[in-house]
Amino acid sequence: MKNQFVDFIHDQQNRICSALESVDGKATFREDNWVRESGGGGKTRVISDGNVFEKGGVNTSIVHGVLPELIRERFNVDQGWFLAAGISLVIHPVNPFVPTVHANYRYFELYDTEGGELRDSWFGGGADLTPYYLDTSDARLFHQMHKEACDKIDLQLYPKMKTDCDNYFNNTHRGERRGIGGIFYDYKRPGKPYDSQILLELAQYNADAFLNAYIPIVEKNKSKAYTDEQRYWQEIRRGRYVEFNLIHDRGTLFGLKTDGRVESILMSLPPRVRWDYDFSPEANSPELELLEVLRNPIGWM
Amino acid sequence: MKNQFVDFIHDQQNRICSALESVDGKATFREDNWVRESGGGGKTRVISDGNVFEKGGVNTSIVHGVLPELIRERFNVDQGWFLAAGISLVIHPVNPFVPTVHANYRYFELYDTEGGELRDSWFGGGADLTPYYLDTSDARLFHQMHKEACDKIDLQLYPKMKTDCDNYFNNTHRGERRGIGGIFYDYKRPGKPYDSQILLELAQYNADAFLNAYIPIVEKNKSKAYTDEQRYWQEIRRGRYVEFNLIHDRGTLFGLKTDGRVESILMSLPPRVRWDYDFSPEANSPELELLEVLRNPIGWM
Repeated sequence: MKNQFVDFIHDQQNRICSALESVDGKATFREDNWVRESGGGGKTRVISDGNVFEKGGVNTSIVHGVLPELIRERFNVDQGWFLAAGISLVIHPVNPFVPTVHANYRYFELYDTEGGELRDSWFGGGADLTPYYLDTSDARLFHQMHKEACDKIDLQLYPKMKTDCDNYFNNTHRGERRGIGGIFYDYKRPGKPYDSQILLELAQYNADAFLNAYIPIVEKNKSKAYTDEQRYWQEIRRGRYVEFNLIHDRGTLFGLKTDGRVESILMSLPPRVRWDYDFSPEANSPELELLEVLRNPIGWM
Repeated sequence: MKNQFVDFIHDQQNRICSALESVDGKATFREDNWVRESGGGGKTRVISDGNVFEKGGVNTSIVHGVLPELIRERFNVDQGWFLAAGISLVIHPVNPFVPTVHANYRYFELYDTEGGELRDSWFGGGADLTPYYLDTSDARLFHQMHKEACDKIDLQLYPKMKTDCDNYFNNTHRGERRGIGGIFYDYKRPGKPYDSQILLELAQYNADAFLNAYIPIVEKNKSKAYTDEQRYWQEIRRGRYVEFNLIHDRGTLFGLKTDGRVESILMSLPPRVRWDYDFSPEANSPELELLEVLRNPIGWM
């Protein structure tokens, strides 16, 4: 499974970067290969100052080594050796009518010792869309594609993973979700009812769904005209994205506390951001319409 | 002490806001009075879009009520009633040659029950300077004023509180301090060797020192010419300020997790911010000169 998952993330990294470069038409990804001192490394690919994408990263990493203290505490094990492989992407478009998007698919193995017995393993993943202006047909398309992907495995998956996504990407300090959601799953251990091949397929179907939803959403909106005020609102909302990632996101905090590569982890932060004191959109505005679905998530299917 | 401390913070709020308005010459503070649902409230004063100050807040709050879970856990008490009074300020100037500054003075009382026996109390406080370009005479002035304030109480205070400041305002994930420091103290309980009157004086002397240092630093630098590149660097560094406040700052996280008023807490975040992937200043540049003292704090006295 380890080798299959590594092939999957590298293949997706290539496909996603190519698709985004095609849509952008100007900027291309630069790649930084990095090595983790205590084992493994990654390929960070970053795009910036494009026609369509202001900043984005599509990163893979395969790290291994002695189990960090944080994981030992969490899983209540004295010692161990781990391997974690994943792809993680965040895309921040220029145009406020093009949503920001995040996706991540990951696989974790826990061993007694290096080369020792496999003790535990799990899969995690998901994708969520963060629009600046609500377009219900975009939201529905994003959810529809992910529902279809999950339904190929089990009809029960999408409803649960949709709710888990709303619960996870939650700026609890503001009573607002980060965006209009998608799907989220974590700690999915191979066994009943899904063996590891099925969990790999779940990641594969969802990665395809992500691209099949996001590319048309970008194409549809990327040339729309926008005002300075709409751009201003986008920068205010990007501040909420930063708040979620730095205050609440387990992945970000885990990475920063386990000697992850800081620039690869924080590529998720938007390029230009504003914080105004007590900024509130006007009544009956499109900005407030967005806030309402962030405060009270709805079913899109 | 409670009443004395409340008078002190309100008096300082007035003095500091007046002094900053005078230096700015254009913008004035707006005041929002707010009430905390579970007891107490505050006066949030915010300035924005000034000649000198792009955004700043000088807030006081006096909150009380049943002890929040977070404090019960931290101090290992089953139940209790608390009162916390404090002034907290963060100022973000327009000009990259004017440093950002933060100061905070606070007092906490812990009771058995409302109106019951006082079980514990402590003082905390400090101020730290965050320049975008290093000016060693500004750094020395800021430290000199605080050293003189601390020396009035005890010559041993400044060296300890200077080191504690460097250790506290530390972006550990980047191996960089937030700025060039100042002083920091917390959990100072009345008793030997300082009773509560002396600890109040410590806060008073330091609040005066803060203003006596910062106003001249602003006056000296506020009219300096700067380039777009220098402003760009300021916005990159402001990103590090956000990272510290949202990832590491106990006060921010405590406020957000105990139903503090979000807009009053997050007034500390800078108005316009940038995150570029893997931004590094050039060799032998003034930008790198700053980074060097953030990576390896030095003694200024």
